[in-house]
Amino acid sequence: MTKLGRSASRLRQNGRPRTLESATESVDFGPLKNWVGFHLRMAQTASFQAFAKRAQGLAVRPGHFATLMLISRNPGISQTALSRANGRDKSTLTPVLADLERRGFIRRRRTAGDRRLYQLTLTRSGERLLRELTAFARAHDRTLDRLIGARGRARFLALLRRIATELA
Amino acid sequence: MTKLGRSASRLRQNGRPRTLESATESVDFGPLKNWVGFHLRMAQTASFQAFAKRAQGLAVRPGHFATLMLISRNPGISQTALSRANGRDKSTLTPVLADLERRGFIRRRRTAGDRRLYQLTLTRSGERLLRELTAFARAHDRTLDRLIGARGRARFLALLRRIATELA
Repeated sequence: MTKLGRSASRLRQNGRPRTLESATESVDFGPLKNWVGFHLRMAQTASFQAFAKRAQGLAVRPGHFATLMLISRNPGISQTALSRANGRDKSTLTPVLADLERRGFIRRRRTAGDRRLYQLTLTRSGERLLRELTAFARAHDRTLDRLIGARGRARFLALLRRIATELA
Repeated sequence: MTKLGRSASRLRQNGRPRTLESATESVDFGPLKNWVGFHLRMAQTASFQAFAKRAQGLAVRPGHFATLMLISRNPGISQTALSRANGRDKSTLTPVLADLERRGFIRRRRTAGDRRLYQLTLTRSGERLLRELTAFARAHDRTLDRLIGARGRARFLALLRRIATELA
């Protein structure tokens, strides 16, 4: 086990087997073993699933969290601006918004100037849901922070931002 | 612009506007601005979309790439082992495998000992597709490597691995 693995294992709060590590022992990953793209996906999948587990009881999929947050912070935001800020293309965002509207969490109003455009706002029930999700997200991000460590956090965030910005 | 942003911009190969940065200027991200979970998702989304753009003409979704690679490197692998190695739960993996089988890229054979289990192998056409996708993935990962820089790469990979392992 690496030094990194040892110190990380102290953060472990339950006795479940380390699925990825056990898999690594017997499975041949080929070039994936050292590719950043693969490990970025694995880290994101694990992070998303851990957040989803926390937020289980709530009436919305955790993927909706950033969408709700951005609408709450920017009332009247257009679908285009939201799609950019959220890193989702229109074809992914549109069904998410339709779903949130159907459940009464957001409102879509046509813009007076251009009837093809929507302005998005949260309903009261959307604001309440966002408050609950934010508590879970905050706790989840504290877990991520512990895993990353205070010293390397700024650099890690800067590299993630650089990837998102340069490849967008 | 930060020092990081300036040096990263030298890597830019076309004149498109920096969507994330422009969005950042006018949109309020609230707590998302500094949360690792959000930036992990943004980086993964951008990376996936850049890879998808490269692999456009191919008869398979780029998300299938790691699945094909793992089956090719581990012929006869079970669905459970594949699901672990690939960081996807069974409900996500099953439709992917059904789709790859339908298109003639993989074979699923029931295990002699336990008829509930499948053993997975690639067909010839699956191996050919994998070779093509691997070329695109290799080029994509070189782009990621340039963005990350040689000095910080090992540390960045180690942190992604730690997140995937500890949260799995």
